[in-house]
Amino acid sequence: MAGLEKGNVVIGQSGGPTCVINQSLVGAVKQLKKYPEIGKILGAIHGVKGILEDNFIDLKELDDELLEKIAKTPSSALGSVRMKPKKDDVIKMFEIMKKNDVKYFFYIGGNDTAETAHIVNEISNEVNYPLKAFHIPKTIDNDLLINDHTPGFGSAAKFITHAFAGDNLDNRSLPGIKVNIIMGRHAGFLTASSIMARKHENDGPHLIYVPEVPFSVEKFVKDVKEVYDRLGRCVIAVAEGVSDKDGFPVLQKEILIPSPVKVIDEDGTPLMKSHEVDSHGNVQLSGSGALGDYLAGVIKEQLGAKRVRADTLGYLQRSFLGCVSEVDSREARLVGEKIVEYAADGKEGGSVAIIRKDSPEYEIDTIFTPLSTVAKHTKHLDSKYILDGKDIDPSFIDYVKPLIGDIPEIGIIEDSRI
Amino acid sequence: MAGLEKGNVVIGQSGGPTCVINQSLVGAVKQLKKYPEIGKILGAIHGVKGILEDNFIDLKELDDELLEKIAKTPSSALGSVRMKPKKDDVIKMFEIMKKNDVKYFFYIGGNDTAETAHIVNEISNEVNYPLKAFHIPKTIDNDLLINDHTPGFGSAAKFITHAFAGDNLDNRSLPGIKVNIIMGRHAGFLTASSIMARKHENDGPHLIYVPEVPFSVEKFVKDVKEVYDRLGRCVIAVAEGVSDKDGFPVLQKEILIPSPVKVIDEDGTPLMKSHEVDSHGNVQLSGSGALGDYLAGVIKEQLGAKRVRADTLGYLQRSFLGCVSEVDSREARLVGEKIVEYAADGKEGGSVAIIRKDSPEYEIDTIFTPLSTVAKHTKHLDSKYILDGKDIDPSFIDYVKPLIGDIPEIGIIEDSRI
Repeated sequence: MAGLEKGNVVIGQSGGPTCVINQSLVGAVKQLKKYPEIGKILGAIHGVKGILEDNFIDLKELDDELLEKIAKTPSSALGSVRMKPKKDDVIKMFEIMKKNDVKYFFYIGGNDTAETAHIVNEISNEVNYPLKAFHIPKTIDNDLLINDHTPGFGSAAKFITHAFAGDNLDNRSLPGIKVNIIMGRHAGFLTASSIMARKHENDGPHLIYVPEVPFSVEKFVKDVKEVYDRLGRCVIAVAEGVSDKDGFPVLQKEILIPSPVKVIDEDGTPLMKSHEVDSHGNVQLSGSGALGDYLAGVIKEQLGAKRVRADTLGYLQRSFLGCVSEVDSREARLVGEKIVEYAADGKEGGSVAIIRKDSPEYEIDTIFTPLSTVAKHTKHLDSKYILDGKDIDPSFIDYVKPLIGDIPEIGIIEDSRI
Repeated sequence: MAGLEKGNVVIGQSGGPTCVINQSLVGAVKQLKKYPEIGKILGAIHGVKGILEDNFIDLKELDDELLEKIAKTPSSALGSVRMKPKKDDVIKMFEIMKKNDVKYFFYIGGNDTAETAHIVNEISNEVNYPLKAFHIPKTIDNDLLINDHTPGFGSAAKFITHAFAGDNLDNRSLPGIKVNIIMGRHAGFLTASSIMARKHENDGPHLIYVPEVPFSVEKFVKDVKEVYDRLGRCVIAVAEGVSDKDGFPVLQKEILIPSPVKVIDEDGTPLMKSHEVDSHGNVQLSGSGALGDYLAGVIKEQLGAKRVRADTLGYLQRSFLGCVSEVDSREARLVGEKIVEYAADGKEGGSVAIIRKDSPEYEIDTIFTPLSTVAKHTKHLDSKYILDGKDIDPSFIDYVKPLIGDIPEIGIIEDSRI
């Protein structure tokens, strides 16, 4: 245990919450508490927005019992934000940090959050403000570079597994075609995890579409027909971010922009005409059932199938209570602790990444990595896992299973007539 | 332990599955196995459809280990069906039952299923076929008369509680307006259960709309505005079946039928133009995000709120793996066992209902009740539980809490700035 500079710390949470993001918060806070040279551990209320508003809570004052309860609670306890600070914002943040004698900034989030930490670090060098900015990884999307996987992903993948295992049984009992839309703008890890729901022959999901492969509605309908003709039912996993060959999301192209299905108001004006975009430039894909309804509508129309349903798994994927992977929970705590250790080792700012050891049993290690290596960019599902653009290779199970943990046992009557 | 008539038994499952419907199946099967006078326990594949097709599996041949695994597995293990048999169908069912020497028919399901059992019993008297038909209750809607509550409801209510508890925290971290659509065509029990997610001051759901109260879009927008102005965020629970003052579902009136939002195809033809209706006359309400998207669209347009999202909790409510209430599980098993006992007592057909004892601790009993008392009709949420058409009275917690069981502890930073 080396030492930290005497002063205060700011810690914040940013981007979409996860079920275990507070494990990382509490891991960092409890580790920081071990260093007497740290005065206050200032929790920024709603991330950089809280810093700009001098809006902090001293987390040192929370007792261990409450901290442990918070650690087990989903969603960002400090409040989150989606905001990419401009240079002026960062300069203002430094003023407020200086006033509060802040020497370290820890920011928990995904690649947009890492980008913010990176910007803050760069500008601090430029203007000679002696701040060290660190990033602590989290994202259900599992799309951070360098990392084998990210905290938050395992629990979300567990939710997906439980949802699809149940939905496959539901669809088995009342056969039909079922489309389930899963979170994931550019990366298909979460959607691919639905493969974990397959336990018996002919179990769904029967088709899996990830954003890494250009999506064609025509091919989709053909794929569904093949399964439906063969099994009399079909469960389908589709990532919300599936896009055409030009990279244009189906949700925008087919639904929000004119073409075969239009949603209009009384005057014929397309609804949702102003695509909601956050300050990192991301268009809203979640929080609407439109993609699922569109795909179900196309299937109904083109296949004449009787029972076609769509569900959009929505925000439950990242915040549902009581569906947490133990491994994920443990690792989220670990990265929070480790980043403080890297800071105490004298690092000038950076991120902590999880790497998987090449061992027979699942084992991980953490490494220190520069912010630029995880900022902004997206890790994609390896093409070796993608089968014919419509399924996932079973080898993906070896990758994802240890991150999810055990799944409740399923007993069925194995009879082809059901 | 009295006796059953010598012969065989048919047992089937019908309607929407639940997480504990197989507990009832296994309860009945294991109880029936105790009677040596029962030869085969014929599981009807996909309910009455299986009977009509002489499509059975002898459940006596499944060993106890598999039966217990099946009991713990969500969704109808025998396959389900939504079919109201006509008189000709019932006569044909009797031919097949006669061929199989069937003396008893047990049918697990909701009020439509009870209606089918009732029809079968009536016609068996009419045509002098010596069959005794029994109904075993299940429905996540909790809308069976006579019953204090129904097997399947407690686990679905637990799912709703976990979903809303998580979603409230999600909405707290990234404030905005969030609409969640919950299953429930005519009865608001499941939607009302979302009240269980409130643990701290200002926790959501902040507004709860059940089908028992006429829904006005104007009032809804006003209610949302009041909460959003006060808290800067708003989580809303809406039953899928909310209807206008004439009893016309909002989903049909506002979305599928012109005004103010239309979903049309290229030629201007309304999509989903043929309302899907099952043989009990129920219009499809689930399996589409349209109601949530419509309400979110109205809020966006009329309040100009920035972050408005909708999720439709969908089929996960009835089949999600690993979110089962222990009480619900136990009671579902019990009603399966009890109905066999009522049959052995010489009853001519009927149903078993759960009643709650007037005791300080939660305790239940079962009673035998004629099929006509639970068939077809819907139990509604008592008006004493409904507050101003937009909320649920806290006294509902006393009713629903024992059915759900313990909820994981939630730790938050209690700070009005978050």
